[in-house]
Amino acid sequence: MTTTSRTPTPEHKFSFGLWTVGWTGIDPFGSASRPALEPWEYVKELAALGVWGITFHDNDVFPFDADEKTRNERVGRLAKATEEAGLVIEMVTTNTFSHPVFKDGGLTSNDRSVRRFGLRKVLGAVDLAAELGAETFVMWGGREGSEYDGSKDLHAAFDRYKEGLDTVAGYIKDKGYGLRIALEPKPNEPRVDILLPTVGHALAMIAELEHGDIVGLNPETGHEQMANLNYTHQLAQALWSGKLFHIDLNGQRGLKYDQDLVFGHGDLMSAFFTVDLVENGFPGVPDGPRYTGPRHFDYKPSRTEHMDGVWESAKACMSSYLLLAEKARAFRADARVQEAMTYAGVLDLARPTLDEGETIEQFLATDDGFDAEKAAERDFGFVRLNQLAVEHLIG
Amino acid sequence: MTTTSRTPTPEHKFSFGLWTVGWTGIDPFGSASRPALEPWEYVKELAALGVWGITFHDNDVFPFDADEKTRNERVGRLAKATEEAGLVIEMVTTNTFSHPVFKDGGLTSNDRSVRRFGLRKVLGAVDLAAELGAETFVMWGGREGSEYDGSKDLHAAFDRYKEGLDTVAGYIKDKGYGLRIALEPKPNEPRVDILLPTVGHALAMIAELEHGDIVGLNPETGHEQMANLNYTHQLAQALWSGKLFHIDLNGQRGLKYDQDLVFGHGDLMSAFFTVDLVENGFPGVPDGPRYTGPRHFDYKPSRTEHMDGVWESAKACMSSYLLLAEKARAFRADARVQEAMTYAGVLDLARPTLDEGETIEQFLATDDGFDAEKAAERDFGFVRLNQLAVEHLIG
Amino acid sequence: MTTTSRTPTPEHKFSFGLWTVGWTGIDPFGSASRPALEPWEYVKELAALGVWGITFHDNDVFPFDADEKTRNERVGRLAKATEEAGLVIEMVTTNTFSHPVFKDGGLTSNDRSVRRFGLRKVLGAVDLAAELGAETFVMWGGREGSEYDGSKDLHAAFDRYKEGLDTVAGYIKDKGYGLRIALEPKPNEPRVDILLPTVGHALAMIAELEHGDIVGLNPETGHEQMANLNYTHQLAQALWSGKLFHIDLNGQRGLKYDQDLVFGHGDLMSAFFTVDLVENGFPGVPDGPRYTGPRHFDYKPSRTEHMDGVWESAKACMSSYLLLAEKARAFRADARVQEAMTYAGVLDLARPTLDEGETIEQFLATDDGFDAEKAAERDFGFVRLNQLAVEHLIG
Amino acid sequence: MTTTSRTPTPEHKFSFGLWTVGWTGIDPFGSASRPALEPWEYVKELAALGVWGITFHDNDVFPFDADEKTRNERVGRLAKATEEAGLVIEMVTTNTFSHPVFKDGGLTSNDRSVRRFGLRKVLGAVDLAAELGAETFVMWGGREGSEYDGSKDLHAAFDRYKEGLDTVAGYIKDKGYGLRIALEPKPNEPRVDILLPTVGHALAMIAELEHGDIVGLNPETGHEQMANLNYTHQLAQALWSGKLFHIDLNGQRGLKYDQDLVFGHGDLMSAFFTVDLVENGFPGVPDGPRYTGPRHFDYKPSRTEHMDGVWESAKACMSSYLLLAEKARAFRADARVQEAMTYAGVLDLARPTLDEGETIEQFLATDDGFDAEKAAERDFGFVRLNQLAVEHLIG
Repeated sequence: MTTTSRTPTPEHKFSFGLWTVGWTGIDPFGSASRPALEPWEYVKELAALGVWGITFHDNDVFPFDADEKTRNERVGRLAKATEEAGLVIEMVTTNTFSHPVFKDGGLTSNDRSVRRFGLRKVLGAVDLAAELGAETFVMWGGREGSEYDGSKDLHAAFDRYKEGLDTVAGYIKDKGYGLRIALEPKPNEPRVDILLPTVGHALAMIAELEHGDIVGLNPETGHEQMANLNYTHQLAQALWSGKLFHIDLNGQRGLKYDQDLVFGHGDLMSAFFTVDLVENGFPGVPDGPRYTGPRHFDYKPSRTEHMDGVWESAKACMSSYLLLAEKARAFRADARVQEAMTYAGVLDLARPTLDEGETIEQFLATDDGFDAEKAAERDFGFVRLNQLAVEHLIG
Repeated sequence: MTTTSRTPTPEHKFSFGLWTVGWTGIDPFGSASRPALEPWEYVKELAALGVWGITFHDNDVFPFDADEKTRNERVGRLAKATEEAGLVIEMVTTNTFSHPVFKDGGLTSNDRSVRRFGLRKVLGAVDLAAELGAETFVMWGGREGSEYDGSKDLHAAFDRYKEGLDTVAGYIKDKGYGLRIALEPKPNEPRVDILLPTVGHALAMIAELEHGDIVGLNPETGHEQMANLNYTHQLAQALWSGKLFHIDLNGQRGLKYDQDLVFGHGDLMSAFFTVDLVENGFPGVPDGPRYTGPRHFDYKPSRTEHMDGVWESAKACMSSYLLLAEKARAFRADARVQEAMTYAGVLDLARPTLDEGETIEQFLATDDGFDAEKAAERDFGFVRLNQLAVEHLIG
Repeated sequence: MTTTSRTPTPEHKFSFGLWTVGWTGIDPFGSASRPALEPWEYVKELAALGVWGITFHDNDVFPFDADEKTRNERVGRLAKATEEAGLVIEMVTTNTFSHPVFKDGGLTSNDRSVRRFGLRKVLGAVDLAAELGAETFVMWGGREGSEYDGSKDLHAAFDRYKEGLDTVAGYIKDKGYGLRIALEPKPNEPRVDILLPTVGHALAMIAELEHGDIVGLNPETGHEQMANLNYTHQLAQALWSGKLFHIDLNGQRGLKYDQDLVFGHGDLMSAFFTVDLVENGFPGVPDGPRYTGPRHFDYKPSRTEHMDGVWESAKACMSSYLLLAEKARAFRADARVQEAMTYAGVLDLARPTLDEGETIEQFLATDDGFDAEKAAERDFGFVRLNQLAVEHLIG
Repeated sequence: MTTTSRTPTPEHKFSFGLWTVGWTGIDPFGSASRPALEPWEYVKELAALGVWGITFHDNDVFPFDADEKTRNERVGRLAKATEEAGLVIEMVTTNTFSHPVFKDGGLTSNDRSVRRFGLRKVLGAVDLAAELGAETFVMWGGREGSEYDGSKDLHAAFDRYKEGLDTVAGYIKDKGYGLRIALEPKPNEPRVDILLPTVGHALAMIAELEHGDIVGLNPETGHEQMANLNYTHQLAQALWSGKLFHIDLNGQRGLKYDQDLVFGHGDLMSAFFTVDLVENGFPGVPDGPRYTGPRHFDYKPSRTEHMDGVWESAKACMSSYLLLAEKARAFRADARVQEAMTYAGVLDLARPTLDEGETIEQFLATDDGFDAEKAAERDFGFVRLNQLAVEHLIG
């Protein structure tokens, strides 16, 4: 046999966060197992692997307390290196979670002086994102939450979250920046309960915003799975709501700490259907919404790996994706799969329940001649359809 | 000591589903352990316990295949018994999950003939709810989901769900019924992945509806906890969005099957803060939204109990609630708690981050003289505040 | 491409429980979606699919309250059909969980009269197993547990469990039956907490038994995963302890209710390594213990399927297994994998930490010249090794 | 009302790890939020709170790379401060998880040179424990595990674990140290799958050891709950096996990252029954085994707290415990509880299933006159018994 890794090219639009390959292995029970390189050093290596773009938090590039000069020098050097490497800076985000000043959150800290500071830091990062030509500004509110139910006035917290998001979105509009905000939900870690824990909660918040039109989602595989949810379902609801602005792909094994494994190293069947949706769209709604943004990996090379393992793991993310994309294309093209989808009614669900123009009165007055006992005997063939997916995947 | 159960009265607005005390103990691994009584027999017993209202699914009262006459006779008999007992029928819902015709869902079944049948059944139950004077029509889409990612076109599924909900809400408006729809989210069981798995996802769907103004939420304790989420946070976001129409209280112990334990027999600290929110509102937003609907229990008497245990368990739900309400009132009234809340900044979060009238430009031009290192040293005292809650609860 | 199902033969030693294909679809929220066939009817169908053996609970064949004549007639008819079909009855088990008399357990019910009845029922099923030539007698104590921490004296419960197991094992020895007992752990469902919740706990119990030599394990994929554990690790510890007597293969998606999906339709990477261990043994311990028993499936055809789906799902279990076995063989045979295993130290772990004959004193007196900082820089290459597995699996 | 904290005294045998109050707040997403004090500084403060003893890892006191002189000076200073404060050093453990050399484990690293180094470090810490008069030597193998199923030969890993444990236990015996080893299970974090994930697995390992007689358990509340298990059940099985050598009390809220909350700030009902078991023993087996060791807290003051919050949180652990102990005593003394336990059969489970001297033959030949249908109607009253616990707890 000839098992072969797949080689990415910029056309695949693969991007990586600098904090991913740059993670040194510090975890709650251990210190760094690898050196930290300078930001621009990662860029060169990633370009060599076929990567298309990079992303970063402000403080991945310059320290929290950097002065203007240091900030500009380091940002300039990164921008130059990125351009020289032929890469794109597709997304920028801000770190409002590492410094202890944010220990109770940035936009929703109980301390108003912190909220004002946090908001300024976010706006500064928006400027940075615009300056570097990013299209997406991700906001992960990792510390917006609580350990204890009594430690937050939740109504006020949602008000402050809304105020913060609308202020940032309004600023983007005022400035005429070509940026969209993408919220990244997470249910827990590093807080016991994080606000906007899932794609659903973030969509519900966006619906309440004044400037919600430029605010969407950046769902992360592992984060949604930490809420015991199906990641592909999350992408689908975000797409259906017109809000899938960015994606964070990685791997998670079970309801545990946030693992950020290589994409494909978690729930592999779920990863297959994720790639199938991203690459091929909804099977029964050919003209439905499609995700066209970057294939962004937010993962961590395992702490057991040294620098060789860092690059191997980045390659693995892309290779898994490309292999799954091949499989997903073949799956869709297989006549047996099409037949099984038809048998299962998958392609029929796009048909409205009411006839065109049918009123409720007409509907209620109609006798469909429906026989519930007979209809209940329908064999949907879902298991067979899923087995076709399994056999495409591993056959 | 004199540990004492608390005695409920109708003023407490406690209500029970007929399917709760009426559960006979059939579970995936066992047959009934108790007899089924007639619906009206439960009513009398519940009234004797101090209950205020009842709720039911259509098929808790008459069989799935009942003819019109049987339906009317049984509904009439229940209505009469309820009135005689001085109880209210506060909510009615429909069963679109037990009969195998609904094995792939009601409103989102891949089989269009089933969708049409399901929609008719829902509309029939709406008429029933209106006829009986209920204020709330709950919709739990327990079978709207899938076991396998390939067995649903998810975009079409959300379209059909929207179509179904808007049809039902439109019908209610057309008919001039005084009913509001309350969606009941659940992440899984009896399907591996249920659509609208959490409060957030249901709120996001409602935001897309044409008739979303009369559609809100009926969050259930255990259901949200099965998504690894904080139930009180769910109530809070629903309240903040103006959508907390109904509540389903019960107990759940961990990420397991849906247990429907007595309220208070699951996560007790969480139950305390749930009751605190329901009874006392948001601590820092005194004029904020309040839940004023029924205190509805959706639980199951454990299968180990016979009929004595059924009534004991119903009493236990109410007694736990009343005890927690007493504790929550004392907690709020305690000067030390108020001091600890102030110390923790809980009451300060309601203050907007920007000054009144402050523009972003002014804000960015202002130097707050903020010292991040100093601010980072703030002791929030969240642990102490939580310990005050623990000591109120068990002290 | 030519995605192909694999065709099983009796040499593969695939077996199915009669309750698997015989599940009619009753779940906590729904009634049967399929008819129940007679036990012997399943046998014929399974044989046609290439199955080698069957298994059953006593009450899969005759009712709980069957008289001796009915029992014998039905058992005889099943035995005859099985023989005619060329199948083996490899395992028999007993149902001490469905009838409400067992609502608090069989061997550990708080009611001593139930314990005595339960023990008699188990012993009766042991006779049946011996009579039919089964080699394994599985004991799943699904109701041995509790919903509330106060409802069991746990010390007494472990004593009674031990008493029950030793009585049954002693009876097997007394009778000279060629049977071994295999305990099947499960953490929860249908009780909130089941005794002996994982492979570890069952092994710990066996170590306390008088007749533990003929008592081992029957670990089920989904059950261990419901305890948030790695199934392959469970098989490995059972093998290491010499106690892997039987296996129950199926699929589970996350920390939810017990799903009993088709093998391979849950965590696919985990299934790959499970098959790899079962088929190929421990990579670095070639002469280590091997599992040589039946490949037994304990799954449920999804409720959405009618009879066609029942047979399709049984085929799918076997086809997935065979495909994974092919992949696992190729994985082990690949020189790159061997090289990566060596690089990762996988094959080195079998080497004792102390030299042969090295005493602790000698060891402590020896200077290995170890440089911790240098050793810490080792790149284990675990990610690359895992990616090789992924690429074998889906490449 | 007069909610009052309870004041501990040394008689309560409360002990704390230096790493608990000494945690500076570093987590996977943030840097320290509090200063680190010197080890001896914590001792004085803890003594002032009524604490009885302390515990620590070797590297809580001296750095990983400390020379002999530094080690001795720092250990001596701590020992002196502890003695002066009137505290006991009840347990010592070793850190084989923080330094990157242990990134693949200590006793089971794939790298034999690391295993030898790890074993030496453990033996050095055993000497330290003995030197300081500790009675218990805890071993938490936090890095003994894997992220990927292929990265360990599991049979070899169990062999090496056994070799390591037997070497350490043998060394303790050889030296005549008055120490017992207590294994601390954990299912995951910082590895995806840790070996010996639960109390059950550790008991099963101990049963295989040569020197298992001095090896027992140190179960931690949150760790067992991270495996979706009931902590009190874990304590009970360890007690039943004669292996409950030490306990680690804390709080955990759900299947998430390891939270190490204050004891009582997680699952409060579970904490009640834990304290009930520890303080009052098994209800139906008065002469059964009892835990008499330290009440040891392994928790973390939340990162939102500064030094005031550190001491408040330590007080909260003890106050919660004392309040729960009061409640548990009252629960047991309440005649209604005794009556409900009797009604529920809790006290009857200690009675053997077979009569004294009854042989299996006699048993099978006896007709108990058992009526299964009638017995199935028994009302166990478990809900009422649990409600009595709730009402004692919060009444």
